[in-house]
Amino acid sequence: MFELHPRLRADTFLVTKMEVSSLYLMNDARYKWLILVPEIEGLKELHELGVGDYSTVTSEIKLVSETLAHQYSPKKINIGALGNMVEQLHIHIIARNEGDFAWPDPVWGAGEATPYSPELSAEILSSLKNSISL
Amino acid sequence: MFELHPRLRADTFLVTKMEVSSLYLMNDARYKWLILVPEIEGLKELHELGVGDYSTVTSEIKLVSETLAHQYSPKKINIGALGNMVEQLHIHIIARNEGDFAWPDPVWGAGEATPYSPELSAEILSSLKNSISL
Repeated sequence: MFELHPRLRADTFLVTKMEVSSLYLMNDARYKWLILVPEIEGLKELHELGVGDYSTVTSEIKLVSETLAHQYSPKKINIGALGNMVEQLHIHIIARNEGDFAWPDPVWGAGEATPYSPELSAEILSSLKNSISL
Repeated sequence: MFELHPRLRADTFLVTKMEVSSLYLMNDARYKWLILVPEIEGLKELHELGVGDYSTVTSEIKLVSETLAHQYSPKKINIGALGNMVEQLHIHIIARNEGDFAWPDPVWGAGEATPYSPELSAEILSSLKNSISL
């Protein structure tokens, strides 16, 4: 049975369930940083998805990217599937702006996360959930 | 007319042309590090591809990932579309192994590239080109 990796569970809030994946918000107020996790047990690599699921997951990546772009008008979207430390397949989709904490470097490993206030995370989760479900 | 960004041209060798993208090998012998560049002028974000091209480019990503996995049996494939410094859309597909230079961190910004010898780059290019074309 699929279970979210404890490290991802500790660092994120659930935004919404999608068709194959669930979408999470990283608890780091420095960026709008989303993580898409296909709910398939044991999956480590994007290319290991079967043809149908691969097409669905890449469409989910597109929808999440479009939502971040539309909602926050960032300078760039960064997409990454790394998994060198947490092997469970998870895809980072991050809205980046000039002057954000790590800019222009990647966000991974750059300083410490700034946790959201409960009010702010609730507001962002609700707004993202509404947009993704449209 | 589409032209490869000068920074990408300087840092890579052409492996092969695919359907929408061209595939390049980073001139960095520390990793098997490939870069896929969709040849569409002005394109900066993966999600800006039209539905048909998006499907083709994500299939190209899958094929390149499978080829690296099959040919080099790495511990992990890392995939990244960042573009904070070079805006032209380019997708990194990198075979990673425990103990490689940056492991377990991402490769971007980690030290200096180790250029290939002409013999070694020619050998890798020929072997990748053959596998991708199968």
